[in-house]
Amino acid sequence: MLTDLTLDALREYRSSYTRPDDFDDFWDSTLAEARELDISVEAVPVETPLQTLDVHDVTFSGFGGDRVRAWLRTPKGRTGLPAVVQYHGYGGNRGSAVENLTWASAGFAHLQVEVRDQRGGTGFMTRGITDRETYFYRKVFADAVRAVDAIRELGSPDVAVIGNSQGGGIALATAGLVPGLAAAHFQAPFLCDFRRALTVCGRPPYTELTAYVAEHRRSDVFSTLSYFDGVGFAARATAPAWFSIGLMDDIVPPSTVFGAYHAYAGPRQIQVWEHNAHEAGGSDDLDIALDAFRTRLLEKP
Amino acid sequence: MLTDLTLDALREYRSSYTRPDDFDDFWDSTLAEARELDISVEAVPVETPLQTLDVHDVTFSGFGGDRVRAWLRTPKGRTGLPAVVQYHGYGGNRGSAVENLTWASAGFAHLQVEVRDQRGGTGFMTRGITDRETYFYRKVFADAVRAVDAIRELGSPDVAVIGNSQGGGIALATAGLVPGLAAAHFQAPFLCDFRRALTVCGRPPYTELTAYVAEHRRSDVFSTLSYFDGVGFAARATAPAWFSIGLMDDIVPPSTVFGAYHAYAGPRQIQVWEHNAHEAGGSDDLDIALDAFRTRLLEKP
Amino acid sequence: MLTDLTLDALREYRSSYTRPDDFDDFWDSTLAEARELDISVEAVPVETPLQTLDVHDVTFSGFGGDRVRAWLRTPKGRTGLPAVVQYHGYGGNRGSAVENLTWASAGFAHLQVEVRDQRGGTGFMTRGITDRETYFYRKVFADAVRAVDAIRELGSPDVAVIGNSQGGGIALATAGLVPGLAAAHFQAPFLCDFRRALTVCGRPPYTELTAYVAEHRRSDVFSTLSYFDGVGFAARATAPAWFSIGLMDDIVPPSTVFGAYHAYAGPRQIQVWEHNAHEAGGSDDLDIALDAFRTRLLEKP
Amino acid sequence: MLTDLTLDALREYRSSYTRPDDFDDFWDSTLAEARELDISVEAVPVETPLQTLDVHDVTFSGFGGDRVRAWLRTPKGRTGLPAVVQYHGYGGNRGSAVENLTWASAGFAHLQVEVRDQRGGTGFMTRGITDRETYFYRKVFADAVRAVDAIRELGSPDVAVIGNSQGGGIALATAGLVPGLAAAHFQAPFLCDFRRALTVCGRPPYTELTAYVAEHRRSDVFSTLSYFDGVGFAARATAPAWFSIGLMDDIVPPSTVFGAYHAYAGPRQIQVWEHNAHEAGGSDDLDIALDAFRTRLLEKP
Amino acid sequence: MLTDLTLDALREYRSSYTRPDDFDDFWDSTLAEARELDISVEAVPVETPLQTLDVHDVTFSGFGGDRVRAWLRTPKGRTGLPAVVQYHGYGGNRGSAVENLTWASAGFAHLQVEVRDQRGGTGFMTRGITDRETYFYRKVFADAVRAVDAIRELGSPDVAVIGNSQGGGIALATAGLVPGLAAAHFQAPFLCDFRRALTVCGRPPYTELTAYVAEHRRSDVFSTLSYFDGVGFAARATAPAWFSIGLMDDIVPPSTVFGAYHAYAGPRQIQVWEHNAHEAGGSDDLDIALDAFRTRLLEKP
Amino acid sequence: MLTDLTLDALREYRSSYTRPDDFDDFWDSTLAEARELDISVEAVPVETPLQTLDVHDVTFSGFGGDRVRAWLRTPKGRTGLPAVVQYHGYGGNRGSAVENLTWASAGFAHLQVEVRDQRGGTGFMTRGITDRETYFYRKVFADAVRAVDAIRELGSPDVAVIGNSQGGGIALATAGLVPGLAAAHFQAPFLCDFRRALTVCGRPPYTELTAYVAEHRRSDVFSTLSYFDGVGFAARATAPAWFSIGLMDDIVPPSTVFGAYHAYAGPRQIQVWEHNAHEAGGSDDLDIALDAFRTRLLEKP
Repeated sequence: MLTDLTLDALREYRSSYTRPDDFDDFWDSTLAEARELDISVEAVPVETPLQTLDVHDVTFSGFGGDRVRAWLRTPKGRTGLPAVVQYHGYGGNRGSAVENLTWASAGFAHLQVEVRDQRGGTGFMTRGITDRETYFYRKVFADAVRAVDAIRELGSPDVAVIGNSQGGGIALATAGLVPGLAAAHFQAPFLCDFRRALTVCGRPPYTELTAYVAEHRRSDVFSTLSYFDGVGFAARATAPAWFSIGLMDDIVPPSTVFGAYHAYAGPRQIQVWEHNAHEAGGSDDLDIALDAFRTRLLEKP
Repeated sequence: MLTDLTLDALREYRSSYTRPDDFDDFWDSTLAEARELDISVEAVPVETPLQTLDVHDVTFSGFGGDRVRAWLRTPKGRTGLPAVVQYHGYGGNRGSAVENLTWASAGFAHLQVEVRDQRGGTGFMTRGITDRETYFYRKVFADAVRAVDAIRELGSPDVAVIGNSQGGGIALATAGLVPGLAAAHFQAPFLCDFRRALTVCGRPPYTELTAYVAEHRRSDVFSTLSYFDGVGFAARATAPAWFSIGLMDDIVPPSTVFGAYHAYAGPRQIQVWEHNAHEAGGSDDLDIALDAFRTRLLEKP
Repeated sequence: MLTDLTLDALREYRSSYTRPDDFDDFWDSTLAEARELDISVEAVPVETPLQTLDVHDVTFSGFGGDRVRAWLRTPKGRTGLPAVVQYHGYGGNRGSAVENLTWASAGFAHLQVEVRDQRGGTGFMTRGITDRETYFYRKVFADAVRAVDAIRELGSPDVAVIGNSQGGGIALATAGLVPGLAAAHFQAPFLCDFRRALTVCGRPPYTELTAYVAEHRRSDVFSTLSYFDGVGFAARATAPAWFSIGLMDDIVPPSTVFGAYHAYAGPRQIQVWEHNAHEAGGSDDLDIALDAFRTRLLEKP
Repeated sequence: MLTDLTLDALREYRSSYTRPDDFDDFWDSTLAEARELDISVEAVPVETPLQTLDVHDVTFSGFGGDRVRAWLRTPKGRTGLPAVVQYHGYGGNRGSAVENLTWASAGFAHLQVEVRDQRGGTGFMTRGITDRETYFYRKVFADAVRAVDAIRELGSPDVAVIGNSQGGGIALATAGLVPGLAAAHFQAPFLCDFRRALTVCGRPPYTELTAYVAEHRRSDVFSTLSYFDGVGFAARATAPAWFSIGLMDDIVPPSTVFGAYHAYAGPRQIQVWEHNAHEAGGSDDLDIALDAFRTRLLEKP
Repeated sequence: MLTDLTLDALREYRSSYTRPDDFDDFWDSTLAEARELDISVEAVPVETPLQTLDVHDVTFSGFGGDRVRAWLRTPKGRTGLPAVVQYHGYGGNRGSAVENLTWASAGFAHLQVEVRDQRGGTGFMTRGITDRETYFYRKVFADAVRAVDAIRELGSPDVAVIGNSQGGGIALATAGLVPGLAAAHFQAPFLCDFRRALTVCGRPPYTELTAYVAEHRRSDVFSTLSYFDGVGFAARATAPAWFSIGLMDDIVPPSTVFGAYHAYAGPRQIQVWEHNAHEAGGSDDLDIALDAFRTRLLEKP
Repeated sequence: MLTDLTLDALREYRSSYTRPDDFDDFWDSTLAEARELDISVEAVPVETPLQTLDVHDVTFSGFGGDRVRAWLRTPKGRTGLPAVVQYHGYGGNRGSAVENLTWASAGFAHLQVEVRDQRGGTGFMTRGITDRETYFYRKVFADAVRAVDAIRELGSPDVAVIGNSQGGGIALATAGLVPGLAAAHFQAPFLCDFRRALTVCGRPPYTELTAYVAEHRRSDVFSTLSYFDGVGFAARATAPAWFSIGLMDDIVPPSTVFGAYHAYAGPRQIQVWEHNAHEAGGSDDLDIALDAFRTRLLEKP
C-alpha cells in the first residue's frame, strides 16, 4: 500500500523547508575546518582471493582528524580511473572487501566509505543534536566530502557519488557541498525534509528523532536539523542527478524525496517505483546508475 | 477505524479500470474451450447422519478437463429445485458435508463448489500470472461457470450465485459470464479494481500481488489482471445483485467494491456496514440473501 | 510451532490444582439457590425460511432469575428427541436462528444457549472476581445447568453437552455439575487449570486475568478461581467425554486441557491435533462428536 | 507520525455530534437521583511515612449509594484549602497513598478519586450500553460530580478538576455538570466525539466500542453514547479550561479533542504537542496546570 | 534471543527423521527420468558494462524438459575453470547479471541458478504436495542436479555447490544426489528435518506447511516430505561440507540444521554464530567458503 | 506468560559470569581518575510552587569533569538529612522538579540524578563498547559514585541508593563501588548477567547489544561488558539490599536478576512478583523500600 501521497500529489508537493541564512557559512567553515588538517590518505593493498581486481584498505583524516575507513577497488593493475564514491545505509558499514564488486569490475575506481562509529549501532539521529556544531552528521558529511578529496588525491579527477537510504542522503549532502562532481545517484535518500518526515513516518530510524522531540518537547531540534536537510543541499547542487524512490517506502517517505528532488538545482530526473518499498528499484536502479555514470565518466569525449 | 475512503467519498468513487478491447473475446474463447469438453457431471450420494437433507458428492469437468468437486445438498427426497451456487474464500475448501446447511434447509438445491488446488495453500494470486492464458483465475472462473452448467444439468434451471471474499469475486465473475442468472449476492467481494486495491491494502492476499510486482518491477502484471477484474465482469452482468461491504475491511478495500458496484450493469444494491471489517454483515447478510433469493427463485409467479 | 509442552510431556503432565474443601458445598448451594426460582421455560416459534427444521426462541430463568436466551432447533414436527446443549465461545452469542443446523438436521433437539451479557464485549474474566459469590462465571455455570433443566422440561430426557473454547469450559462445568448426562464433547476447552494457563499463555482472554493479577498484585484471585476451574469439575464428572486440543493453540494452552483430561472421572478420550491452533479439529471434531452422540443418544438400545 | 488530521485541519474541524433534546433532562434527573442519597463522606487518616503531608482515605456515596474511594492529601495540619479533584485513566485506580504528591505539596487539598470497579479490568466501554440508564459511565460521571460535592463538604469551596485520558473525559463531564468550578485541565481527554473516534482510532479502549458495534451491527449504541459525549458536556461548561493533546496520539484521536475544544462554552485554550503521543505534554502540562490553578485558586484576590 | 535449543543441546540433538526404504529408488528414477531428456545447454553472451568478467545467459533443460535459467560468470576470456554452482533463497531469483561477482572475480566459473517459477511468489512449500511425484521440490532438486550436469558440459569438471537458506537446502540435496562434488557450503540450510521445523518455527516459509497440515489434518504430508528432507540427503553425501547457522535464526531453526549436520556422511564442519539470526555469518561465511573452495578446487595438487 | 525460567528454576540458577582478574583494578583506577578532579558541587535553589519542600538544581563534576545534573529535594528548611540517591531508567531523565516527591516528603534528602546525554535517545548500550576505557557505562557508573560523593558533601553522611531498570543496574554498580552505604533497593535491575540476557531477551534495550554482536560477529564485546556486569558488582557489595523482579518481565529477564541476587555479598532479599512484567511491584516495591530505608536511615539508634 502507498505510505505517503499519490504520485500525482507527489509531483505537486514542495517542501516547506527553508534554508537558514547562514547555511552556506556554516558549511563553508565546517569544511574549511576539516580541510585545515592534512588528509593523510593511506591506501594499503589487501590480500584477497580476487584475481581480477585490486583492493586497498584506504584510510584518511576526516572531520576533527578522526580516521575514516574505506575500501578502494580497482580493476587489476589499473590507475587513474574515474571514481565512484559510495556511502552506505544507517547502521551499516563498508562491508566485506570481496563483495560489492560491480563498480570496479565495470572499470571504475570504487571507493566504499564507512560512516564513522556506526556499524551495528543505533541512536545516531540524535547524537550531539543539541548544537549544530556537535551534531553527528556534521562530522559524517564532512567526512564524505573528504572522501571525495581523498579519491581525487589518489588520482581520480572525475568523481560520481552514490548511495542508498542514509547513503543517498550523504551523497546528496556531498553533491551540495562539492563542486564539480560528474554525476550523482540517490536511491531512496534519507535525511531530507525532516519536518515532513516526522509527520508521515512511523518506523526507524526517523522515529529516533520523533522520540527525542517527544521527550524534549520544547527543544529546538529542528533548528539544528535545518543545517543538515537534504532539501537544503539540493538547492546548492549542480551535478546531474538521478533520484529513485518506491511509493510504498515506509522508512523514507516518498514526499521527502520529492521535496529534495524539486529543490535540486542541477539537471535531475527521478525514477518512481510504484509498488516498491525501501528497496526502491534495487538492481534496476543499479542499471540506471551504471548507464548514467558510464556515459558521464567513462565515455566522455 | 476506517481502512479506506469515507462513505461519502465511496459513493463518489469510480474505478479507473478500463476493460481491454478483447476482454469479451478472451472470455468467449475461454468458455468455448472449457465447454468443448464433456462436463461429465457425477453426483454420488454421501452417507451422513443428516435426516432432513440429502448430500451428494458432485464432480464435473472444469477447465482443461480437470475434475472439480462440490457438495450438493437438497431437502430429503426433493429434486428439480432452484439452485444456489456458492463459492468460497481464499485458501478455503467446500467444507464438511454436514455443515453449511442453511440453503438446503430453506428449500434450495445448494451446490458448494471447491476451488481447485487451493485448500490450505497460498500463492494463487500470482500463479501463472505471466500470461492471461495461464493465470490461475482463468481456470477458476471457467470452473465456476461450469458449476452453473453442472447444476442446470442436474435439474435446476433457476440459479443464483453467492460468495464471500474470493467467493464473492468468483460469483461476480460468474454473473458477468453466465447470462440468465436469477440473482447474485457478493459479500466483501475480492478480485476487484486491482490497481486501487494494491495502493490501499497492506494485508494478504492482495499483498501477494504487491510483492510480486515489487520483485518484477517492470513486468506487465496489470495487463494480465485486466482480464480478471471484477469491475470488468460487473459491466457485463444482468442479474439483480446484492453487494455488501464493511468500511473497516482491511483485506478487501471498500473502494474496490464500490468500484465494481458502480460499474454493475444489472439491478443492484449495496449494504454498507460502517463498523465491520472483512466479516461485513455476517449472518445479517445471509438474511438479506435468503430474503432476496426466496423472492426471486422460490416465490416467483 | 508448539505453544506449550510436547505431546510426550503433555501425557505426563498433571495439574497442580487442588479443589477447595467446600467446592461441592459452594456449588450445591449455588445450584440450590438457582433452582429455588421457577425456571419458567418459554419456547416461542420463530418464523424462518427453513423448510426442514423448526426453530424456537427459548428463554428460561437462570441464576438470580435473569432470563437466559437460546435457540431450540428440531427436525420439522418432531418432539421428545434426545438433546444436544451447546455453549459458545468468549464474547460470542447464540448466533443466527438459521445457521448451525447440523445437530437438528441429524435428528437431535439442539439447544444453542447464549451466555448472558457477553455478546461483543470483553472483561468478563475479571467481572466480580473479588468474591466467588459475585464472580461472573458463577452465574454462567448456573445458567448452563439450568439450560439442561430447561431442555429436559421441554421433553428431552437424554442430554449431551458440547462446546468450543469458553463453550467447552462451560460444557465441562456442566458435566461436573449435572449427573446423568449421556455424553460430552469439549473442543479446546477454556477455563481450566488457571495457574498454569497464566504462566504459558500470552493472548486474550487469559491475559485479562494476567493484567488483573498484575495490577492487584497481592489479591487473592486464585482463591476465587479455584471454585471455577475445569480441573475441579472434571473430577466430579461421570458422563463419557471426548476432549480435543491443538498443540499449536495459543489461546487455550494444551497443558491446561490435559490437566482437566487427566482429572476427568468419567470415561474419556482425547483427540490431539498436532499442527492445529485454537480451531483444533474443526469439522473433524464435529464428525467425532456426531458419531459419539449418535451412538450414545440416538442408537441406544 | 500524525495519527489524525494536520494541525491546520484540526483548527477547522468541528464535530458532527448533536446533543439530544433531553440531554439536560437526563443529567438533571441522574444527578437528582444521585443526590437524593446522603453522601456520607468519611475521611479516615492514613498512617504514612510522609512528614510533610496528611493523607486521608476518603469514601462517599456515589451513584446508587455505592461507596466511592479517594485519597485526600493536604499539607500537614492545614484545612479549608482550595481543592484539586483528579480522575484517573482507563483501567487505573487512585494509586498509592504516598505517590502523586505534587498538588498537596503545592498547597492544595488534593482529592484523587477512584473509578468504581475498574482497577486492572477491561470492557467498561460497553458495560450496560444497551440503555443510557444502565451505562457504566452514567454511574462514573455521577460519582465524579459527587466527588466535588464531597470535597466541598470537607471544607474546600473552591474546586478545580483535572484528569488525563479517561480522567480528562471525566473531568470534562464534571465541568459540564457542576456549575461554579474554578478551573479545569483536560490532558488528552477520552470519551469525546465517539462517532469520529471510531472511524480514526484502531487501538484500545475505543476499539471495545468498535468491536461491540461490529458484533451488534444494527444496535443503537450511538444513541446511548450521545448522552455521554464530551462534546455535549463541553457546550454546558463555564469554568476556564486548559486542553492538551499530542498530534501523534493513537489512543485519543486529536480531532475528537478539538471537537470538544471547539464546542467548549467557557474560556478555553489548547496546548498542542506536535510530536507527542498519548502522553501529550507530560510534566509540561502539569506545569501549565499548576500555574493556571495557582492563579485561579490560590492567588485570587 | 535464542530461537531453539542451547548450543550444548544442539550438539546432542539428533533428528528423528528416518529415510523411507525406497528413498534411493525414488531419486534414482527421478534423475534417470530427468536425464533421459537432452540437457540442451545454451550459453548466450550477455552484453554488460563489466570489463573484467564475461557473463553468459545459460539455459538448460531441467525436470520435464522445462528450461532452467542461470547466469554464468567467468573471468574475462578464461574457460575450463573449476565451478561454483549457487542456488538462491525462497522467492528469489538469479539476480542481476552484474551483481554477485565475487566467485568469478576469484577465478571460478560461477553458475547462479534460478529456481523455476519462484520469483516474487509464495506457496511453493505445498505446491503438488499431495504426491511425491508432483511435489514442487522434486522438480527443483532435479533441476539443481542438472545444473551440475550443465556446468560440467560447459567445461568445468570440478564443481562445488553453495547456497543460503532454500539455496542451502538445494545445495544439500545436490550434495546427496551428485557423486564427486569437490566441496559444499550450506548457510542456514532450509528444507531439513521438517517435523522438527514445524514444531519450533512460527515464521514463513515453514508456516506454509504448518497452515497446510492444519487445514488438511489427516493428510499424509510428512510422507511426501520424507523424500525431500535434507537429513535424508545428508546421509548420502560424500563431498567435504561446511555448514553455518545462527542460533537466533527464527526462519531456519538451528536444531534442524544440526539434524542434517549430524547425519552428514562426508567430512563436515559447522560454524555456529551465537548471536546471529537468519543472516548467519554473512560475509564471514563467504570468507570461509572462499577459503575452502580455493583450497579444494583452485589449489589442488 | 513467564518470560524466563520458573520460580523453582530461578532459585537454582547461578550466573556463568566470572569476574576478570583486574576488575577491581579497573574500577579503582577509574574512580581514582574521576576523583582526581574537583567535584565542584553546586546547588541552586529552584523556585517552584511547592510549599512543603525545597528543591535545588544540583550539578557536580562527574567522570572526565563533565557536569552531571540532579534534583535535590528536601523537606522545607531542613538539612543534614539521610539521603536517598536515585538513578533512572534507560533513555529517561531526572524528570520534573515538582514530581517524584515521596522520598523528600518522607523526610529524606532525595537526590534524583540524571544520566548524562541520555534523555530521549537510544544506542547507549553500544556507545564506546570497543574498549572498556571508552564504554558509555564507565562514565555513568563513575558519575553515580560521584553522586554519592556529592550528597555526602552536601551534608548527608548516611546514604541509600535506589533505582528501577537501568536505574537499578546503576544502583547495583554503585553498591559494589561505594563502601558504607546504608541500604540499597534494585527494582528489575538492568545490566546484569549480559550473556544470559542476550540469549533470553528479544526486546530493547538488550537487543541493542544483540544487534551489535550480530553485526560484528567476531568482536569481543563480552570482554568489555565483563567489567560492567551487575553480577560482578554484586560480589563486592556490602550494604543490605532489596531486589525486586516480575516473572513476566520481557525487558529484564528474571534469571539475570537472580544471577546478581545470588552473587550479592551483603545481606539480601528478593521480592518476586509472579504475574508482573517490567513494572515489577510498582508502588508495592516503593512501600518496601520506604519501610527498609526508614528503618535503616531514619530510625537507626
